[in-house]
Amino acid sequence: MSTRDCALCRRVAETGDQWIADFAMTRAYLHEDQFFPGYCLLILKRHATELFHLDPDERAAMIEEVSRLARALDTVFRPVKVNYELLGNQIPHIHWHVIPRLADDPLPRWPVWRVDHEPLHLPTEGCRERVAAIRAAL
Amino acid sequence: MSTRDCALCRRVAETGDQWIADFAMTRAYLHEDQFFPGYCLLILKRHATELFHLDPDERAAMIEEVSRLARALDTVFRPVKVNYELLGNQIPHIHWHVIPRLADDPLPRWPVWRVDHEPLHLPTEGCRERVAAIRAAL
Repeated sequence: MSTRDCALCRRVAETGDQWIADFAMTRAYLHEDQFFPGYCLLILKRHATELFHLDPDERAAMIEEVSRLARALDTVFRPVKVNYELLGNQIPHIHWHVIPRLADDPLPRWPVWRVDHEPLHLPTEGCRERVAAIRAAL
Repeated sequence: MSTRDCALCRRVAETGDQWIADFAMTRAYLHEDQFFPGYCLLILKRHATELFHLDPDERAAMIEEVSRLARALDTVFRPVKVNYELLGNQIPHIHWHVIPRLADDPLPRWPVWRVDHEPLHLPTEGCRERVAAIRAAL
């Protein structure tokens, strides 16, 4: 897949209301579905599909950024557990789903993918407040 | 949770038929359910629950081990995509689900958690062969 054809290459070239922060390797965004409060995406700036396609230095830098975002989500949302998922089944461009699982989670023992739900889109002001809270905790 | 109470602290203290290899930080095992061929678990040797509870050196070493296992699975199973998941909702001891998603996957666009299925337990010889193939590719 070329950069021009990749939806996440296009996404990561932009900021927008959901943009939280830039790191050396990645950009952090609030997921547009906030059914799970604090659900974020961390998207690799360059196009790559698998962990083993990165250099060791890139892997180390990237996992530091995943960890830093997760720590901020822990500070803001006080989850029971954080879930970290690098999948890419739909869009094979490295991106991490970083999901705080809160005490009132509807299915706390299972991954979020088992929870059928309507996407919860925050109004603009609510999105900005959540982004600002996470950014302040980074 | 103390080490004594943690099922994965007990698991990682043992080898058994599903044991593939030891790395500095982790032990790799074939998942007992081989419905998704090559599904592996990579379990941290010490008890920790979140990425941000590790030292940077530990994170860097661990992600190298995740990557090394994934590359071996790529060599053996030739997946369309590898999925990497650090969850811990049921057992909050760091362990990675490393899952090759093959061309004949029943639900290729979604995480494995959406695929209802009966666990597929390999007979001992089949398990040993699969373990040996992955080990040889490491």
